[in-house]
Amino acid sequence: MPLTSYFEEIKVWTEETLHRLVPHAHTHPARLHEAMRYSLFAGGKRLRPMLAAAACDAVGGNRDTVAPFAAALEMIHTYTLIHDDLPALDDDELRRGRPTCHVRFDEATAILAGDGLLTMAAQFLTKADLYPGVDPAVLLRVATETLFAIGSQGTIGGQVVDIEMENKAPDLAALEYIHTHKTGTLIVASVRGGALLAGSDDDRLEALTEYARAIGLAFQIVDDILDETGDAAALGKTPGVDKALGKLTYPAAIGMDESKKLAARLADRAIGSLAPFGATGSRLADIARYIVARSF
Amino acid sequence: MPLTSYFEEIKVWTEETLHRLVPHAHTHPARLHEAMRYSLFAGGKRLRPMLAAAACDAVGGNRDTVAPFAAALEMIHTYTLIHDDLPALDDDELRRGRPTCHVRFDEATAILAGDGLLTMAAQFLTKADLYPGVDPAVLLRVATETLFAIGSQGTIGGQVVDIEMENKAPDLAALEYIHTHKTGTLIVASVRGGALLAGSDDDRLEALTEYARAIGLAFQIVDDILDETGDAAALGKTPGVDKALGKLTYPAAIGMDESKKLAARLADRAIGSLAPFGATGSRLADIARYIVARSF
Repeated sequence: MPLTSYFEEIKVWTEETLHRLVPHAHTHPARLHEAMRYSLFAGGKRLRPMLAAAACDAVGGNRDTVAPFAAALEMIHTYTLIHDDLPALDDDELRRGRPTCHVRFDEATAILAGDGLLTMAAQFLTKADLYPGVDPAVLLRVATETLFAIGSQGTIGGQVVDIEMENKAPDLAALEYIHTHKTGTLIVASVRGGALLAGSDDDRLEALTEYARAIGLAFQIVDDILDETGDAAALGKTPGVDKALGKLTYPAAIGMDESKKLAARLADRAIGSLAPFGATGSRLADIARYIVARSF
Repeated sequence: MPLTSYFEEIKVWTEETLHRLVPHAHTHPARLHEAMRYSLFAGGKRLRPMLAAAACDAVGGNRDTVAPFAAALEMIHTYTLIHDDLPALDDDELRRGRPTCHVRFDEATAILAGDGLLTMAAQFLTKADLYPGVDPAVLLRVATETLFAIGSQGTIGGQVVDIEMENKAPDLAALEYIHTHKTGTLIVASVRGGALLAGSDDDRLEALTEYARAIGLAFQIVDDILDETGDAAALGKTPGVDKALGKLTYPAAIGMDESKKLAARLADRAIGSLAPFGATGSRLADIARYIVARSF
């Protein structure tokens, strides 16, 4: 199967799971569920579900076992986008070519839709009957790890430092903190959760964690590069926004050429850490290459 | 032990647990953790932890088993207050006599501190090593129930309808929906979670659920009454706010006398459902009486 078909297959699988698990738009209160679904089904690469599925494939697990987890990851990602776009934060009016949630609905609804998606994600991380055959202790471990990854010392922490550093001089340590926390921790949790639910042993889990750390940072560096080079289609949002907000970026901190080289080195490192998997790790390797040569 | 000592004991127990589990205010990023702690330690009755502890006592459990759950309930309650107070929602500047989180810090920090508390609560609901001796399947059940109670068809749903109904004609069905969802579902989850973690059987759980539903609604009716009668000390927030916002309240919908009678009837019903517990249910009965005669 070519890589694009694999991507498409996972996208369909993720969206089917979301449609099955998330309440219909007319569920009371309808405005809230409509807003949650508006942002959840706004397109997007479904990168985190893809990583969870590919990690599950790499350890030879049953992908059905990972489906609710993959849906929860996408709900978490969507909630962070809704809250980051709010006027008090990045004040973005467009996301994937459509009005952002607070523009399409209103600010109160957007705040509560984000809260609703985060809460529902946590539900899907813990709802045992969605995970037949999974040891409850493993499910608890995956839930705790994922929730720690997106907490005040994870994604939210990264977002806070990102705001604090706006219009400050480039500081590579702060930039690394922002990038590893704002996107990195959830990417690591996506890969680890997929592997754990599929029954991974500790050695393979460790190798996959190395992989995920490398691609997590590479992903964010490429995001910075695309913001600078202005490729709106590849970026999925308005380019130049980070620069306009005076955000710290890799090209600003270490230059464009060095940023590109660093992203390529990280992809190589990620692929290297997949050695123990042989052919079963090939999809994860494809994803690492794709992230650096991002055109999706 | 007199009731006030019992309340004080639970308050100390809750706050000790929170101090132990929540990162210090200087944990990076410090501004975020400072904001989370600012709102978490702003006083408050700690009603939900009290209900969890009293339910645990009623079924003869070990209160240590319930401590992290009780802390999570208080983090959830605090997150809902922070987000409800935001300018886009109720736009409150004072909470328990102190500036609200977005006034003391800023709006972005308040949104993210709320997100951080919700996420951390979900972590504490699932972190197995905090619950030695508890069956992982029971812990998952408590987590899922609690998260459903505060989701888009629970607390958040109630908040959305509350906003939608501002300045509309009194509508008893909408009012009941708001009250049972905005506060009721979390009160029910507090009692049920405390009982389940303490090893309750289904019969006792059912009786406690009846109890919790009745006091949950009574609590909110008393809140409406206090908002009207203007007892700021008992209410813990500025009285008259609901009226000024044109919110639906029980006194507006059915009159002040009927509201008081209904609250008293609900307390009686709650106490009646404790019959199977005999003396071990006495604290829960005390709490029901206290809610209606609220002076704390």
